Amino acid sequence: MSLSRLFVDADLAAGVEAPLDEAQVHYLRHVMRRADGAPLLLFNGRDGEWRATLQSRGKKSAVATIGERTREQAAEPDVWLCFAPIKRARLDYLVEKATELGAAALQPVFTHHTAVERVNLERLRANAIEAAEQTERLSVPEVRAPVTFDRLLASWPAGRRLLVCDETGGGPPIAEVLSGLGEVARGAPWAILIGPEGGFDAAELAALGRISSVMSVGLGPRILRADTAALAALACWQALVGDWQHPTPRLDADYRTSRTLV
Amino acid sequence: MSLSRLFVDADLAAGVEAPLDEAQVHYLRHVMRRADGAPLLLFNGRDGEWRATLQSRGKKSAVATIGERTREQAAEPDVWLCFAPIKRARLDYLVEKATELGAAALQPVFTHHTAVERVNLERLRANAIEAAEQTERLSVPEVRAPVTFDRLLASWPAGRRLLVCDETGGGPPIAEVLSGLGEVARGAPWAILIGPEGGFDAAELAALGRISSVMSVGLGPRILRADTAALAALACWQALVGDWQHPTPRLDADYRTSRTLV
Repeated sequence: MSLSRLFVDADLAAGVEAPLDEAQVHYLRHVMRRADGAPLLLFNGRDGEWRATLQSRGKKSAVATIGERTREQAAEPDVWLCFAPIKRARLDYLVEKATELGAAALQPVFTHHTAVERVNLERLRANAIEAAEQTERLSVPEVRAPVTFDRLLASWPAGRRLLVCDETGGGPPIAEVLSGLGEVARGAPWAILIGPEGGFDAAELAALGRISSVMSVGLGPRILRADTAALAALACWQALVGDWQHPTPRLDADYRTSRTLV
Repeated sequence: MSLSRLFVDADLAAGVEAPLDEAQVHYLRHVMRRADGAPLLLFNGRDGEWRATLQSRGKKSAVATIGERTREQAAEPDVWLCFAPIKRARLDYLVEKATELGAAALQPVFTHHTAVERVNLERLRANAIEAAEQTERLSVPEVRAPVTFDRLLASWPAGRRLLVCDETGGGPPIAEVLSGLGEVARGAPWAILIGPEGGFDAAELAALGRISSVMSVGLGPRILRADTAALAALACWQALVGDWQHPTPRLDADYRTSRTLV
């Protein structure tokens, strides 16, 4: 039986009782069939990860009584994923994968060729939380309200590097660009921008060309779907610029056992 | 209206009539509502890509009359993706994405911890063909019959490099390993092996250690699902070793227009 790992809003500290929301209580009791005293892991994006135990507070509510800390909160790569919304099933998958791959923020962008007109932000946020719980992240990516392409560029933060995956071709290879970065660029905040299925239009490409921190790159000779391009670019970025550059710590046998056998 | 691009078995040459199968005829007539004379693009994995036109041969059958060649067949990276089968929806997605990312072959592997017991090869093949048609590949990845982990390793081809994504940690970073390869390794055939959700067991890890061409790598500090790890490793491999190392050709404006506006 695996240990349930939950994202909560509350501050986390030893001995504190963290409230669980109705959906979490339902999930623990009726999906996972956990009884009072069941062990949990909690994180809130600020205080690291803590052991806790489930405690009922009436028929439909419960709290988590917090024990000891299992992991300290640590800095994470500051990379946004800016993407034109796509159809629902693919968007669900994109949010899940981008969360696993360590995106710090998810920014839907309406470009001129974007076919999808609405984004269900609550659904995106729920997917991001679920993926963060499962991928053992200590944070949940910030899911931002959609903006137009023009507005995104007009308010682009000075110094934030923007990696644009340009499917019209002609871009230098992604590994060549990311391997050749200097120290300042490597330490800067970043974003990856993926266009809609129909591509950026000429005015959008021209506007991107006016941002000094833009780097256009190519992702090989095959035409990639927007969701594939997003995940591929994020994986390459983490491998060459982000936190995949460091050897992965060998998992603590005790910790691992407690995650999988409780 | 986009130009329909179809994978066929027949040899392709100017003036030849290529038979279309029943599913293709149904798709063209009833899903895409194409009439006789509608333009198509065909490829077969051997002869490049050709323009063709739809021609009825009775109520339920049709052929494609082949015109001129649009692209020559070219060599593609020789990289297999070996993966423990996962649940159906995720497997569909994995096959689609691995096809877009240029895997040459898809090899299901039953490891000791693999929870899924059956693989629908026909479904995998249909997904691979559909993805190849859409991603403008000139080939379809070979979908192999499942093998046990022990058999896979016992018959491992001499010289084929094996990149193992080891989620127990301790592996060097993927970019460090792939950037540091010598010319012989870069030119060799490759495979990427992803374990099941439960990880490889100790005997499997020991068996992998006895294969001389194995390289274990880490994919950062977050725990990735098996499908995410497969796609991330394949993207990094293409970027650092495969055909994403070359600048992408700028799409021919005529060709592009004909693909999207016919």
